[in-house]
Amino acid sequence: MNLGFLGGTGIEGKGLSLRFAAAGIPVVIGSRSLERAAAAAEQCNALTRGNAARGMVNREMLACSDLVFLTVPFDRAATAVIEVREHLKRGTILVDVSVPVMFRQGRIEFVAQEGVSNSEAIARHVPEGVEIVAAFKTLPAHILADLSETLHCDDFVCGDSNAAKETACEAMRMIPSLRPLDAGPLESARAVERMAALAIALNRRYKKKGARFLAVGI
Amino acid sequence: MNLGFLGGTGIEGKGLSLRFAAAGIPVVIGSRSLERAAAAAEQCNALTRGNAARGMVNREMLACSDLVFLTVPFDRAATAVIEVREHLKRGTILVDVSVPVMFRQGRIEFVAQEGVSNSEAIARHVPEGVEIVAAFKTLPAHILADLSETLHCDDFVCGDSNAAKETACEAMRMIPSLRPLDAGPLESARAVERMAALAIALNRRYKKKGARFLAVGI
Repeated sequence: MNLGFLGGTGIEGKGLSLRFAAAGIPVVIGSRSLERAAAAAEQCNALTRGNAARGMVNREMLACSDLVFLTVPFDRAATAVIEVREHLKRGTILVDVSVPVMFRQGRIEFVAQEGVSNSEAIARHVPEGVEIVAAFKTLPAHILADLSETLHCDDFVCGDSNAAKETACEAMRMIPSLRPLDAGPLESARAVERMAALAIALNRRYKKKGARFLAVGI
Repeated sequence: MNLGFLGGTGIEGKGLSLRFAAAGIPVVIGSRSLERAAAAAEQCNALTRGNAARGMVNREMLACSDLVFLTVPFDRAATAVIEVREHLKRGTILVDVSVPVMFRQGRIEFVAQEGVSNSEAIARHVPEGVEIVAAFKTLPAHILADLSETLHCDDFVCGDSNAAKETACEAMRMIPSLRPLDAGPLESARAVERMAALAIALNRRYKKKGARFLAVGI
């Protein structure tokens, strides 16, 4: 299985691709700029002392990836999908990691999308034959990006296709100390996105940076 | 501090009052029926082999309680508050534990309250001088009700009055292996209620009964 990262040069994409690469899984970091993609891949390989990462422009990354992580900021996610729509090949699984949160005057603001989750809003732009899965929403990017941090938490994976969800979970199980949990249909992303916002609020309240969740009793 | 339970003879009220009573804190189980209140208190005392619990009609319970847990089913919570409105004395802290979830045709349905949490909807009916706090939403009632179960989890406490929140947390800290976390203003109950619904969904998916959450990294 090939893992790609759409807009993978940001903090979220870097952290996520690093965790997979550290687990020995080949990753393709995509960007609109080949130069930035190559630099991010180089950085990933240096940090993992390996060569699991390659950089490509988004279009080429999409051509050779089965599981594509959408790792652009939440308010650019839908546009990013529209931009590459024609290059999303049938059977691709698109994993949306976005959290619709803005910081305004030092306060966290949850951006409700007319009653639906950001993942559901993005799903409207995904062509037929491409399945969307929501994952990694409650994992802080900079914890992912720091390999010295043990994750020791669960991730809540949502999607309407059980097969797509299971494929995503299979890949996720390669990351040590992370347990993917099937959190139900894509609609459940409404809960998971709010949980992610709550984690950010807890970080602020307790002056921490890595709040994330573990489901006890499961 | 006196702890009261409004409509405390249901599964939620019984579980919650049991945990406090087991920690040696006096609890007053309120009900519209003195008989049912007394029976629930007797059961609580038998299970804890103590005499921390008393039963009273709701009105009397309110007269002698500082911290009142609203433990009626979510769809009756607002009505229950309206019914006892005139008996809620100034300075009372009302702790809402409701989760707006319905079971329809075997499926869990989250009941969105026009964009606000159930706690916020209830707050509209609370008289001036009474503070509302949201807590215990993500704790399964039957886990609370089974003293052989170690909680080993966090609770996410929301409220607009820091003083009221802190008073509630102080009481909660008496319950072993439960850590109350300040989850922000009452508005944060929107996240916590959805988390509670997610826990129920996880229980169904994994054939468990006690899903609850721990915030890692805090």
